[in-house]
Order: sequence, then C-alpha cells, then structure tokens
Amino acid sequence: MKVAVMGYGTVGSGVVEVIESHDNVITKRTGGEPLEVAHILDLRDFPGDPHEKLFTKDFNDILSDDEVRVVAETMGGVEPAFSFTMKLLKAGKSVVTSNKELVAQKGLELLEAAEESGANYLFEASVGGGIPIIRPMSQCLAANNIEGVAGILNGTTNFILTKMIEEDMDFSDALKLAQDNGYAEKDPTADIEGFDACRKVCILASLAFGKHVYPNQVATEGITKITLEDVAYIHSIKGVIKLLGQIKYISDDKIAAFVSPAVVQHGSQLASVNDVFNAILVRGDAVGDVCFYGPGAGKLPTASAVVADMVDAAKHIERKKIFGWGAGSEDYVVDYKSTIEMPFYVRAKANKVKIQAIFGEVKFLSRIGQPSDEVAFITDRMTENALDNKLAGVDVINIIKVTNY
Amino acid sequence: MKVAVMGYGTVGSGVVEVIESHDNVITKRTGGEPLEVAHILDLRDFPGDPHEKLFTKDFNDILSDDEVRVVAETMGGVEPAFSFTMKLLKAGKSVVTSNKELVAQKGLELLEAAEESGANYLFEASVGGGIPIIRPMSQCLAANNIEGVAGILNGTTNFILTKMIEEDMDFSDALKLAQDNGYAEKDPTADIEGFDACRKVCILASLAFGKHVYPNQVATEGITKITLEDVAYIHSIKGVIKLLGQIKYISDDKIAAFVSPAVVQHGSQLASVNDVFNAILVRGDAVGDVCFYGPGAGKLPTASAVVADMVDAAKHIERKKIFGWGAGSEDYVVDYKSTIEMPFYVRAKANKVKIQAIFGEVKFLSRIGQPSDEVAFITDRMTENALDNKLAGVDVINIIKVTNY
Repeated sequence: MKVAVMGYGTVGSGVVEVIESHDNVITKRTGGEPLEVAHILDLRDFPGDPHEKLFTKDFNDILSDDEVRVVAETMGGVEPAFSFTMKLLKAGKSVVTSNKELVAQKGLELLEAAEESGANYLFEASVGGGIPIIRPMSQCLAANNIEGVAGILNGTTNFILTKMIEEDMDFSDALKLAQDNGYAEKDPTADIEGFDACRKVCILASLAFGKHVYPNQVATEGITKITLEDVAYIHSIKGVIKLLGQIKYISDDKIAAFVSPAVVQHGSQLASVNDVFNAILVRGDAVGDVCFYGPGAGKLPTASAVVADMVDAAKHIERKKIFGWGAGSEDYVVDYKSTIEMPFYVRAKANKVKIQAIFGEVKFLSRIGQPSDEVAFITDRMTENALDNKLAGVDVINIIKVTNY
Repeated sequence: MKVAVMGYGTVGSGVVEVIESHDNVITKRTGGEPLEVAHILDLRDFPGDPHEKLFTKDFNDILSDDEVRVVAETMGGVEPAFSFTMKLLKAGKSVVTSNKELVAQKGLELLEAAEESGANYLFEASVGGGIPIIRPMSQCLAANNIEGVAGILNGTTNFILTKMIEEDMDFSDALKLAQDNGYAEKDPTADIEGFDACRKVCILASLAFGKHVYPNQVATEGITKITLEDVAYIHSIKGVIKLLGQIKYISDDKIAAFVSPAVVQHGSQLASVNDVFNAILVRGDAVGDVCFYGPGAGKLPTASAVVADMVDAAKHIERKKIFGWGAGSEDYVVDYKSTIEMPFYVRAKANKVKIQAIFGEVKFLSRIGQPSDEVAFITDRMTENALDNKLAGVDVINIIKVTNY
C-alpha cells in the first residue's frame, strides 16, 4: 500500500527509516501488504538523501494520488498541518500523527471529519512517544470507570528534575545539560513551562472521558520555581518532585485537569521514572492502578508508534476505529483550585509557631543547611484556594502539590 | 447481547459483578449494546446468590443458546475447559478467558478452531491479570523487531520476595504470610516453583514471536532456594532478586525462554515492582524498553480484563481479531544454558583465591555476618553451561542469573 509522509524532520525521517528497515514485521502485521512511501512532503531540500525522488513541496501531489490511502503527519504545529490533515480526511485518506499540538487544539474537528468520510485519524505517537497508551487506555475504559490519570509526559523536564534529584545539579545547569544533549530546544519554554505536557493532558483527558479538553482549560505550571532546597526537603520524606499531568473524574459532566510539579512518594511507579522516560498511570475502579512506561520521545521510538498506527490504518481501510470523543464545553473542566482537595508541600520564611497557629499539627520537614527562619511542611488535605487563604499573611517561597499516586 | 460465564469462582463471579456494575461504560464501548449474562455454568450450588436463576450445571444450555455469542471461560485447568471452549468456538461463539493453563497448553488448537469458524478467542486476562499487555505488545510488534521480553508474572512469589527484601522476613514466614493473606494457595507449588509464571511466558512468547511455545519447553526454576543471605549480597550491589520470565529472540526459528530468579538493578522499572504487582517489559529495536505495570491477579482487576475482552468480542462478532500464532516445533526453544550468555551471581563455600584462580578478576560481594569461608561474586558474561564447568570443583550454595533489564 502506498503511503506518504508529511514533514521530514526528526520523527518524519524516522518514520521513513522504520518503514524501510521493518518491512518484514510490517508486512506480517498488515496481513501481507508492505507499506511503500510514495511521497515525502517538506519545503526544505535534502540534497543527497537517498529518497530524493520522493520529495515534493506540493501538498496536492499527495492529496491527488488516489493510491495513497494512509498519510503520516509529522510536521508539528497547527498550520498548515491542520488544513492538510482536514483535506486528506475529507478525501477519505487516513491520517496518523505525532503532532500533539494539533490533536490538542483541533482533534475534535479532525475526528469528526474522519467520522464523516470513514477514514481513520490515529494519534498514538502524540502522547508518550513510543509508549502504547491510546489503545491500552481505551481497553481499560471498556470495563472500568476511570477515576484518574497521572502522567510524566515530558521527557525534557523529567531529565532536568532527575539531574536535580540524583546529582544535586541546579535547575539552570540541568537545563543547559539537557540542551547540550539535544533533549531541550534552544528556547525551552514549551517544555519547562509545562505547555508540552499540557497538550498531552488534553489528549489523554479527551480520550479518557470522551469530551474534548482544550489547552486553555488546563491550569499549567512548569518547573522553573523548583530549587535544590525543595528537592532536599522532599527527599527527607522519601519523595521526589515530578512534573505531572493530572486528570480527575468528578462527574460525567465535570473533570479536573492540571499540569504542575508534584510530590510523588518512593514506591510509586511514577517515582522511579527517570531521565527522558515517560510514564502514564491510569486508575480504574475495577483494575486499580496500571502504569505504562517507556521512551516519551526520540526519533525511532516515536517513529515506531507512528508506523504502528499506519499499519493499523492500513488494516482498517474499509472500517472505522472507534478512538474518538465528542465536544466538551467551557465549564467542563472545573477550577481545580476550588474543588480538588490534596495535601501540599509549603516552604516559607516563617517559624514553626506561626505555622502551627495557622495549620495546627503539621509535618515539618528539614534539610541540611536549613536557615533558622525557614520552614517546610506538609499540610492536611485541602483545596488550593483554602491553602492560599490560610497563607495570606505568610512569606511563602514555594508550594507543591502532593499526590496519592 | 447475551453472554455466558463458565466457572463462578473468584474471577467468574467478578466478571458477573463487573458486567452488572459497569453497564454504562460497557454499553458505551460496545457502541450501544449492553452485555446481559444469560447463563452461569458451575457444578456447585450457590444458594441465595442473586443470580440463582442463571445457574446451570449443563454446558449444553450455553452451547445450544443461539443468542449467546460471547462466553467467558473462567474455570481454570485444561479439562473440561478445553472441550467446552472447542465446542463453543466450532459453533461460532467467541470465547474469552483468564485461563493461562489452557492457553499455554492448547492455545494453538483453540486459535485454529476460532480461525476456521470466524469466532474470536481472546485471552488478555491470562497474562498479567488486569494489565493490558496482549494488545500493547501486539502494537509494539507492528513496527519493532522484539529483542526480548522480561516479566514479573506471578504476584505470589513477588509478594514473598518483597517481604524478604524489604522486611528481612525469611522465605517460609513470607510464604505463610502470603497464605494468610489469600495470595498463596494451601498448596503453593504452582506459584513458588515457577509453573504459573512458566505458563504466562508461553503465552507471551507465542504472541511475541508467532509460534506456540509449550510449558515443557520452558526451563523453569522457582524461588525456594533464595535465602536472606542472597538478598543481602544482592542488596550490597543495589540490586533485588525477582522471579522473572525471560524470552529472547535468537532468529526467526529460534528463541530462548526460561523462568528463574534473577538479579535486577535498582533503577530498572522491574526493580520497583513490589508486593503482588506484576510488570512486563518489552524490548523493541526501534522503541527501546517499554514496561506495563499493574495488578497481576485479584478478582476485579482480572475480571475487568475478561470483560474488556468480552466487549471487544461483542464488537467484533462479524470480523476477526488477528491475535494468534502458528505451530512451533520441538527445537524452536533452544537450551538457554548452552546459548545465552549473561553474568551470574554465585555464592559458594570457598575462598577468594580459589575463585580468582578460576574466574580471574571478579566482583566480590559482602554482607554483614558473612562467614570467612563463604564468598559471593558476580561473574563475567558466559553461558550457564560454561559456568557449571568452571564451578565443577566448587562447593556452590546458590547461582542466580543477572539481567540487563
């Protein structure tokens, strides 16, 4: 079967590589039909690339090729990926993607277009890179009420936090190392401010609970305020700080979804997820906690997930997969700060007496080199708004959510 | 859609419970059709059970009910489960099962019968209880050459080892605790001798590499020889002992598959899998390592996996799922002892000089209370046969494989 690849960057070139190097397994899994790359769309030139004859700068070469039934979109960004994908789906071609920004922003419209034309729109690679998560989650869903999802969804920030936790490296040094290793971009904003994790939370939430969640509905906080002092305090209670995307079921019409640093206790499967690895924990009412771990990014891992979707799309040319969701609404995602209760880690310039006067008996933490006017403690369960009220007169340095995953 | 459940033990009664309590999600996932339990087959009586009217002792009540299209087999054991399943599949009814013994022994025949009649035979719950593994693995397969699989596949032994490692409890006390908690049977042989893990290895190996592997082809060693002394030595090198099922690709016509205690280093995702939890790590050439973690047993987790398969079977009444495999052969699984090289942990009554004379420079381990005539060390990579030759004149106490997972 003829296929096309749009975007010949890291993932796209990986897709072509995996298709060529895994001809045997792919052919076996499609039931006998190999995938053959017929077009590669990219505006750049790749002189000397062995696929020179396949390159095109004209999207219509793919759209108008009736033999191309499956297209991988690995361009990234919303436009022109959205327009191209929409046209392909409307023309009845299936599209698979690693583009989390597009799925998070425009997934609903694209899924609806696919629904109408009978094509498939698959996006396994858009969350968790090479980790199979879309199908396992869909399967968990079949006989569970999902209570919550928590994920380490961004490899760059997990790498930085791992260096801070395990090697006592400070944030800016760890960020620089991530950049030197190619894990972080020159402008690391999307990673360290949590925007990338936010997009993945949108996709997971949409899938888990059946209604589209948009990035602007997800309160998002990055890791730039985390310091080695916080790491040390949390270490003293056998915990680690991770950037987590969290989704919580409230009712069929309400969920909470947020991205933030969070304290995870040793012993949790999420605590031992280090470096650039990702993990997604799904809590179901029947199954309990299941967790999926693997490389969250990287050329070949992500490409292998894209190609697996291409294989699935090729097998399902004549019938629909049912991954998808409906429309949400503005008030579908609640303000978690007024609704979700949890314990918090608080670090402040204050003395214990003052804190106890406000919070009653709390668990104080300590670290080597702790100044006499600094306290750190874990609160009881309460909403973040309630916490903020209590802390109104306190000189707070940092607040971090404490999870029960 | 009418369904039936065969075997009303822990899992079977859980299946009925999940079907009834999760009507809303199930109906959503089947695309609008609820599952309705029409028959429950069990030779025992359950006086006062609210499903009294559904019970039958006659298998033919299920076989002859044309409206029943999907049957859950949660009886366990090979017979009569095999005969019943075969008849159902030949009659075109789909069967889903949690019965690892049956899938490991007779999976090939049953899959062939399903293939012929166009019914589905699904077995997600037979490996890893509630952990989705069959479909994710099948998906990893689509664009990866699988290099190996390693799994903590038995909750009982993992519970025992966890108690030995974390609470310094000796084997027999930990086994007794497992029995008191209902995690181990009165006769714990199938768990502690590795037979249960062996069956799951057969299923994973058959699925991963496409050819049926039978239990008698898998060299199987349990955990009864593991002592607290071994635990202490391994702890000194930041490792833990786990009962692992391992499968290694050698060529398209050869694999290795074995069950044994194995040393796993801290930092591995398998090292932090504690208590009755299971985890399965799949190593692909493109994706790298992905790992699936969750409850490996238990009434509702396992039942939720069975019901998820029932939902899938209900959705696929008119078309085939492609999970399956072909025939293997007697020499398909190699003697790993002569082929697979790895490092080994060795504990022996000997002195270091003698060991160094045999092995050259090796890494010696130590523990508190170590007798002066005892050594423990890690060898270089070699086959187990080569190791046995070297150790011919040595008074060996224990040997444990060291993994690179």
